[in-house]
Amino acid sequence: MEKKEETQGQGQGQEPEQEQVVNPWEVSAKDGGKIDYDKLIDQFGCQRLDQSLIDRVHRLTSRPPHVFLRRGVFFAHRDFNDILDAYERGQKFYLYTGRGPSSEALHLGHLIPFMFTKYLQDAFKVPLVIQLTDDEKCMWKNLSVEESQRLARENAKDIIACGFDISRTFIFSDFDYVGGAFYQNMVRVAKCVTLNKVTGIFGFSGEDHIGKISFPPIQAVPSFPSSFPHIFQGKDNPRCLIPCAIDQDPYFRMTRDVAPRLGYHKPALIESSFFPALQGETGKMSASDPNSAIYVTDSAKDIKNKVNKYAFSGGQDSIEKHRKLGANLEVDIPIKYLGFFLEDDAELEHIRTEYGAGRMLTGEVKQRLIQVLSEIVERHGKARAAVTDEMVDAFMAVRPLPNMFN
Amino acid sequence: MEKKEETQGQGQGQEPEQEQVVNPWEVSAKDGGKIDYDKLIDQFGCQRLDQSLIDRVHRLTSRPPHVFLRRGVFFAHRDFNDILDAYERGQKFYLYTGRGPSSEALHLGHLIPFMFTKYLQDAFKVPLVIQLTDDEKCMWKNLSVEESQRLARENAKDIIACGFDISRTFIFSDFDYVGGAFYQNMVRVAKCVTLNKVTGIFGFSGEDHIGKISFPPIQAVPSFPSSFPHIFQGKDNPRCLIPCAIDQDPYFRMTRDVAPRLGYHKPALIESSFFPALQGETGKMSASDPNSAIYVTDSAKDIKNKVNKYAFSGGQDSIEKHRKLGANLEVDIPIKYLGFFLEDDAELEHIRTEYGAGRMLTGEVKQRLIQVLSEIVERHGKARAAVTDEMVDAFMAVRPLPNMFN
Repeated sequence: MEKKEETQGQGQGQEPEQEQVVNPWEVSAKDGGKIDYDKLIDQFGCQRLDQSLIDRVHRLTSRPPHVFLRRGVFFAHRDFNDILDAYERGQKFYLYTGRGPSSEALHLGHLIPFMFTKYLQDAFKVPLVIQLTDDEKCMWKNLSVEESQRLARENAKDIIACGFDISRTFIFSDFDYVGGAFYQNMVRVAKCVTLNKVTGIFGFSGEDHIGKISFPPIQAVPSFPSSFPHIFQGKDNPRCLIPCAIDQDPYFRMTRDVAPRLGYHKPALIESSFFPALQGETGKMSASDPNSAIYVTDSAKDIKNKVNKYAFSGGQDSIEKHRKLGANLEVDIPIKYLGFFLEDDAELEHIRTEYGAGRMLTGEVKQRLIQVLSEIVERHGKARAAVTDEMVDAFMAVRPLPNMFN
Repeated sequence: MEKKEETQGQGQGQEPEQEQVVNPWEVSAKDGGKIDYDKLIDQFGCQRLDQSLIDRVHRLTSRPPHVFLRRGVFFAHRDFNDILDAYERGQKFYLYTGRGPSSEALHLGHLIPFMFTKYLQDAFKVPLVIQLTDDEKCMWKNLSVEESQRLARENAKDIIACGFDISRTFIFSDFDYVGGAFYQNMVRVAKCVTLNKVTGIFGFSGEDHIGKISFPPIQAVPSFPSSFPHIFQGKDNPRCLIPCAIDQDPYFRMTRDVAPRLGYHKPALIESSFFPALQGETGKMSASDPNSAIYVTDSAKDIKNKVNKYAFSGGQDSIEKHRKLGANLEVDIPIKYLGFFLEDDAELEHIRTEYGAGRMLTGEVKQRLIQVLSEIVERHGKARAAVTDEMVDAFMAVRPLPNMFN
């Protein structure tokens, strides 16, 4: 069934200009519209995450599935069912996620994979490795080695603030950790991937520097437990599950293609859609426009101002028209954001009904969103302020995690 | 003067078939003849190592220049004069050489750069780093990681047997040592080199795996002292001199191109011609034909048999004709080999004269060569047998070399 999935290319170089482009460095919809996620599932060859899988997670973990599962934020997967089969049989798996530290200022979209990964770690009681690709950002963003390393450490504080369990979590920076068993796996992977292959998958050209061409194995090998002998040596080769945004899929298509040739399990994936910009749902947010996103460092006043001023509204032009026609929920950003962050299903449904019928006004919905976001940002800010340098060192120490499966 | 040298490509992909090809993986002369070293100097843009430089080495080190210098084995260089200028001013430099451990059995040609490097280390009293590119051989020769690492350690024993001073010498395997400051320099180099550039220099194609394309920075960065913080931190940025065979020049053309952009000194080079096969001087020896070379593990009987049976003779068909015409020294392998390994200039000159005039017979010259080679191989065998695993560990330990310049 998966025979062909791994060989499908998806690169800048192959797409006619008007088509949607989704790869780790570019996300743009067709003709400036919305990303077509169904088409993406088709192109990439992954599977839709359906209700029966979500119900199964509920059953196996005896806790309500996360909002991001219930509301389709994580909407696609590869072999997530195999992970659940293994878990049900009492076999082990581990989680792997990561971040490219290109900026000190994280926005809420950056927190989504970490919030979800924390839920998975708590629900399944499994170890987690978090890769900070400071080398990647040094190469793509033309940052110095030192600045990339500094950003990696700053970002680690935001990640730790999400509440990960230190007894099950290893955070590492590539500049620190590449070497030894990890480097040996990089070489094993690189041997299995031709230049034509990465050019097809990632759209590299002759003008690209060779650092870019060298990088895919670095993001691939945390999928293999032998890259972390201090954690997994003698631990019976656990499977790997990767929660990530779907733009990272090309890396793991490549990884899954190579894994069996090296005698490793293919990593499983659970993949999210993109968190929309305040201005509307046409892809990812832009780091170059601070008004396109809510940052974890925004003040309550910033949040109020941004939501009121920039959050694209599906409400009607006049109150009279709105009372009559109701809001267009399909394009309304406050409703989208509440879908991500308002936990209470009943309240969300109530707001959708009232707003969609015109009985609630945009201003009222935005008011509720400002409350919800301010709470999240305030909570994150407090948690981050409590993260000391010693805690960063502790999470990043190369060490065994003796109780990681308990 | 060097503005253009670094941009000249020399790759398999660019050469018409009949031309000579010299790169790290292929050495073949035009139409199966001899390598044209003058043309190579031209193509590569390096400089001939002339008598005035050799005289200067003699003066500066107060010891006779090595046989390999006196007889033109090391025949080309890049900026060797700058190294001597710096040395004369009391500034520091270090040596860097290496080996790709593709086989357990070293032949005499493999020892040449190490014999010469030992001489340079002794004469200038400088530190030395020796890179064992087990990762390269794993990727090019399709060896397993483990087998490449084993060969690296076995080869390290042969290298140590050449007599290097442990207080000035650091031997490292890439699989062990890549990481940290070394990896950071790899990324800095990779950022400066486009895919088009390595394709031009090394002749890679789309069918090559990306490990090959990732490798050049790994061979480049031992040229920069910051890749070895345990040795050179706070040591005033010493220059680097690389003794190697000229087929390695493409790596260091690339390195020299990149160095100034990173604020590093360009490494200097001193480059040797190839040690000829027993069957005749048409390039390097072939690892697949054990009778093409004298191995350091050959017995006295093997040596006698190989020299008598396979060493290409420039002598005439019959004794009568030989007495009359004399030997053709230009193609005679015993004379070439004596040129490498017979230290006594007067004796070599005597043999050349007598043999060239037909007064000495091939058998007599071969007899002398068998003696010379047997002595070297016996001496090497004894030295290698004395190398313990503890000594290998000691040479390969990541450690400071506090008296390396004394």
